[in-house]
Amino acid sequence: MATVKVYGPTMSTAVTRVLACLLEKEVDFQLIPVDMAKRQHKSPDYLKLHPFGQVPVFQDDSLTLFESRAICRYVCDKFAGNGNEGLFGDGLLARASIDQWLEAEAQSFNPPSSVLIFQLAFAPRMKLKQDEAAIEQNEGKLAKVLDVYEQRLEQSRFLAGDEFSLADLSHLPNSHYLARTDRAHLLTSRKNVGRWWAEISSRPSWKKVLEMMKSPPK
Amino acid sequence: MATVKVYGPTMSTAVTRVLACLLEKEVDFQLIPVDMAKRQHKSPDYLKLHPFGQVPVFQDDSLTLFESRAICRYVCDKFAGNGNEGLFGDGLLARASIDQWLEAEAQSFNPPSSVLIFQLAFAPRMKLKQDEAAIEQNEGKLAKVLDVYEQRLEQSRFLAGDEFSLADLSHLPNSHYLARTDRAHLLTSRKNVGRWWAEISSRPSWKKVLEMMKSPPK
Repeated sequence: MATVKVYGPTMSTAVTRVLACLLEKEVDFQLIPVDMAKRQHKSPDYLKLHPFGQVPVFQDDSLTLFESRAICRYVCDKFAGNGNEGLFGDGLLARASIDQWLEAEAQSFNPPSSVLIFQLAFAPRMKLKQDEAAIEQNEGKLAKVLDVYEQRLEQSRFLAGDEFSLADLSHLPNSHYLARTDRAHLLTSRKNVGRWWAEISSRPSWKKVLEMMKSPPK
Repeated sequence: MATVKVYGPTMSTAVTRVLACLLEKEVDFQLIPVDMAKRQHKSPDYLKLHPFGQVPVFQDDSLTLFESRAICRYVCDKFAGNGNEGLFGDGLLARASIDQWLEAEAQSFNPPSSVLIFQLAFAPRMKLKQDEAAIEQNEGKLAKVLDVYEQRLEQSRFLAGDEFSLADLSHLPNSHYLARTDRAHLLTSRKNVGRWWAEISSRPSWKKVLEMMKSPPK
């Protein structure tokens, strides 16, 4: 089996979503750095791989894919018998529930949490002025989403059911940054969300991703 | 086979995404109105079906699902042998390409086009003041996305390949409203995007959706 390739920096949430999935599935991969500060992601060669000029790009033999959630779905189907075999469910109904909560992440959790982590975690590093109105507005939106998660996680150990799945995994990258800001209480002040966050962020796959974030390949 | 149920109004883009999919797959369905003006979607009974209080909700026997793109994926898998059998691809590589462009719709096309159609099509009906800055900003964002689509559709008849797929279908609802505003040129001024839009919006499944929008069930 040829090693698959992932192009992108480990500080990118879309990149670490894919890395966490590959590690859960125990698929060997090569991580190829993309220096976004030098705008490598907008270079003509890179745009041939990803026409939107974003990260990550994924390659498996002759297949080139972009969009982190589509890559994760492909990895789960291609390497169905590897590693965590239940990551994308074991049948039609389990998969439907995972897909539903994966879409909830993409459509409801990701937009406000992305704004918050940009404003709270990345803007200071980039020496950009924080947009207080955007922070307040998106904190409110995310709180409403997490209130729904709190109800769900009162009934269910993980979002899509009793097992850790791609739906939970997909929340790790943004939650990781959020948990390191002064808005961490959004996750930790809710009993069931806090219990869920503690559990999913303790997985060996995610701990390995954190190590890679500290010591990315050069 | 029990008839599946879809809850929601036909003016909702997420509802018509699901209806177009069911019609392509030739799956019988019952459409159950939800009066959003009367806030039925926030009623306690409805929130049991959809904890976020959005539309649509989909039911198939004991399964209840929300999130239009997750519903479409389920419909394609559950009714694989019905109607348009290739709507979600015929194998791992075809599905990966469809998933990639379905995510491009969800992550890149949907956000700016949703703002535009809210501001240009819905705000006037609701007698709300239009936000000119939001219109200008999102017109620019959507133009960049459609420039990438234009390149892609120069090489490929449809987004994911030579066949109409769920990826194309998912663009119909927002494009429909956009094409009826004074920003229709975003779609029609680009040669290949214009050709693609004309082709996908002429499908019998979508024409049937348009009829249902004109004469929704009471």
